[in-house]
Amino acid sequence: MDTALPLSFRDLPQGVVIDDPDLLPSYARDQSRFTDSTTPIAVLAPRTTDEVAACVRACHEAKLAVVTRGAGTGLSGGANAVENGVVLSLHRMNQILSIDPVERLAVVQPGVNTAELRAAVAEQGLMYPPDPGSVASCSIGGNVATNAGGMCCVKYGVTRDFVEELEVVLADGRVMRTGTRTVKGVAGYDLTSLFVGSEGTLGVVTEIVVRLVPAPRPPLTLVATFDDLASAGAAVSAITAAGLALSAVEILDRTTLQAVDAMTHMGLGDAAAMLLVQADSDDAASLLVEVEKLAAAAGAVDIAVSEDPEEAAMLMEARRLALPALERLGEWLLDDVCVPRSRVVELIAAVEDIAADTGLTIGVFGHAGDGNLHPTLIFDEASRDAALKAFDRITEAALALGGTITGEHGVGRLKADWLTRELDPVALELQRALRRTFDPEGLLNPGAQL
Amino acid sequence: MDTALPLSFRDLPQGVVIDDPDLLPSYARDQSRFTDSTTPIAVLAPRTTDEVAACVRACHEAKLAVVTRGAGTGLSGGANAVENGVVLSLHRMNQILSIDPVERLAVVQPGVNTAELRAAVAEQGLMYPPDPGSVASCSIGGNVATNAGGMCCVKYGVTRDFVEELEVVLADGRVMRTGTRTVKGVAGYDLTSLFVGSEGTLGVVTEIVVRLVPAPRPPLTLVATFDDLASAGAAVSAITAAGLALSAVEILDRTTLQAVDAMTHMGLGDAAAMLLVQADSDDAASLLVEVEKLAAAAGAVDIAVSEDPEEAAMLMEARRLALPALERLGEWLLDDVCVPRSRVVELIAAVEDIAADTGLTIGVFGHAGDGNLHPTLIFDEASRDAALKAFDRITEAALALGGTITGEHGVGRLKADWLTRELDPVALELQRALRRTFDPEGLLNPGAQL
Repeated sequence: MDTALPLSFRDLPQGVVIDDPDLLPSYARDQSRFTDSTTPIAVLAPRTTDEVAACVRACHEAKLAVVTRGAGTGLSGGANAVENGVVLSLHRMNQILSIDPVERLAVVQPGVNTAELRAAVAEQGLMYPPDPGSVASCSIGGNVATNAGGMCCVKYGVTRDFVEELEVVLADGRVMRTGTRTVKGVAGYDLTSLFVGSEGTLGVVTEIVVRLVPAPRPPLTLVATFDDLASAGAAVSAITAAGLALSAVEILDRTTLQAVDAMTHMGLGDAAAMLLVQADSDDAASLLVEVEKLAAAAGAVDIAVSEDPEEAAMLMEARRLALPALERLGEWLLDDVCVPRSRVVELIAAVEDIAADTGLTIGVFGHAGDGNLHPTLIFDEASRDAALKAFDRITEAALALGGTITGEHGVGRLKADWLTRELDPVALELQRALRRTFDPEGLLNPGAQL
Repeated sequence: MDTALPLSFRDLPQGVVIDDPDLLPSYARDQSRFTDSTTPIAVLAPRTTDEVAACVRACHEAKLAVVTRGAGTGLSGGANAVENGVVLSLHRMNQILSIDPVERLAVVQPGVNTAELRAAVAEQGLMYPPDPGSVASCSIGGNVATNAGGMCCVKYGVTRDFVEELEVVLADGRVMRTGTRTVKGVAGYDLTSLFVGSEGTLGVVTEIVVRLVPAPRPPLTLVATFDDLASAGAAVSAITAAGLALSAVEILDRTTLQAVDAMTHMGLGDAAAMLLVQADSDDAASLLVEVEKLAAAAGAVDIAVSEDPEEAAMLMEARRLALPALERLGEWLLDDVCVPRSRVVELIAAVEDIAADTGLTIGVFGHAGDGNLHPTLIFDEASRDAALKAFDRITEAALALGGTITGEHGVGRLKADWLTRELDPVALELQRALRRTFDPEGLLNPGAQL
């Protein structure tokens, strides 16, 4: 072992410490842009809760910062390595420990891939709903850290809604469990909800009990295209106001559609915007008839409903490819703002104005039914500063519309400054005090959140 | 004003301080049994958030304990007055400030009656789902304090699932807001969920933004009766395992049915147990056909489905009258335990054993579909000690079945000792540290929770 490493690491179990200088740089950062990072002094890759506790204790003793990392797919810099710190990577803790079809619960380690979890429970007729864009590559632990969302959320809710129990290693290495496996329970404060979305700043989650739901029927899918983005936004508002139990209400603008088309040759056409709407309930067909009427009234130029699961999967895949496709256009910076659902039209208009003002290409896509959009700025070296300013203007616009600076990607390092803009100053003080209570020495993911 | 009151009270607005010795005793306690209480030195009844802040500051200055009280319908002693303390009663803050049918949100003061809120939003085609047994008399603020449940929870979730934003007065009188009105949002720690269920130990909630859902169709109701309680429990397990989206799955045992019958002369018959099952979705009829099959297979002796909303309301009223009816039999002590749904049968069997062992009358009723039962002990002076012991045995049995000491009524003072049994010792330390962070001087509801 590298002699520059702290003495406290010498007692860690064989194989846990990774200090190969060729490997360390790949643990420096997540997939965010414009966030600070550095090469960690070591990567710790424990295989068990006891090993996590030993790692955290060793870091605590050596006063080293601990940045916990899931699959590294984050978009806010929440897993970026910091000076005088290690990366605690949970990729080896990737076991689904049990699936209980009667209680509809699964017990998983944090490194489990989210798509694998979804596939495993599907074999038992169950669904784990949260399905972030990165579902194929992200980990459930990272989902818990960011309270990840996805396409199903419009009907089913976000990660926090499905976390029943957690095992957590605290900053000093103590291990604890929170929550209850019963459907209801009010014994003590809701520490579970507090850990969900706390981005590794309050503890290291080492085991997760998630609630599952009966698998719904394969969804029916409606595709509606529009000649202008505002009409698509109006359709979203009307669909939302109707209160239909739809399982996805996604939007893609022309920039995004063309990028996906260029990548996949799917033949998505030349519309200004496309809505993808799914329904997975027994009355899905009648729900989509309602959606069709509302979309037509809002000015849709083409509407089609598909019952073919393969076609549905293909269309949702087009949506999932939005970011990878936009990435091919140049350097990119993706925002994650969420506004009240009735104000999606205004947010879209604000983004169009900002694109027109700056001359930047901004792809707009996202979970329209939740008011959660991901305007994505494309830029090059010459337009880099303009892109940063436009990013701020978009986030500002969302706040001005009564929205939030982050709907599902987390604060991380990308939006730590913005957090002070959104939060009530007293809430901010309280959040800081709370963090000190959990981590008096400030060793857990310093620089993330606040 | 009583000269025995602290000097800091003299600056409080006119009319806020109630110190009439004839009135104070009625604020001494909630509706729990076997919990300590005393007459408060004063009742503070503010009308606005500013007045709440002034009251809390005045108490902080005088080092007086503050017990916040909603409608006083609690069953765990969470609102019981303590020595050297005031009761902060929020009954005057009873305004529904706004209902937004587009965003499906309502902004309410904590003293709003829960049934009134439900009625007001129903006029706009919306529903606020949580419906505790005391819905006609409880307040939404009390529901937030205890994370109240109810009959709809089996489909819709509990109070916490519907609280989007809170305004809170902290222990030192600072005012803050938590949460966001957007459907999704991950900016900062989830302080909102932390306050929900904290029983006034972390702050005083002065405004609540609740999420609403589209009003469902009037429910269809199925009634099934059984010759023995175990068969009813088996039916519950089968219904739960089927994963049907039912909006109520309630149980009443013979003791409870006879008590309700004696009170109402409804003619509920002589069954050992009755299940009341409701479905409020568009496919309600087909769901209840499934339930009928499962109930018959479990040995139901009589099954009837009603489409008549009045009959449905009458049957649910019978369920709501369970506690008032049992109260007529003698002194009572009601438990609130929740077990994994598949273990309801075992819990019922345990309660039957305890009743047989002790010779006590124990009425069993509750939210069977959630695993949340309210075994209610009837006793007199001679059997008082036996009742207390039986109560402990029931709570113990629930814990042994992987359950919790409280599903929806809260810890309060009744179960503060039990909380140390249920919680992980490290979680307990953390909860205490967290409470000190919010309330360093321990003035908010001392004796409740921990």
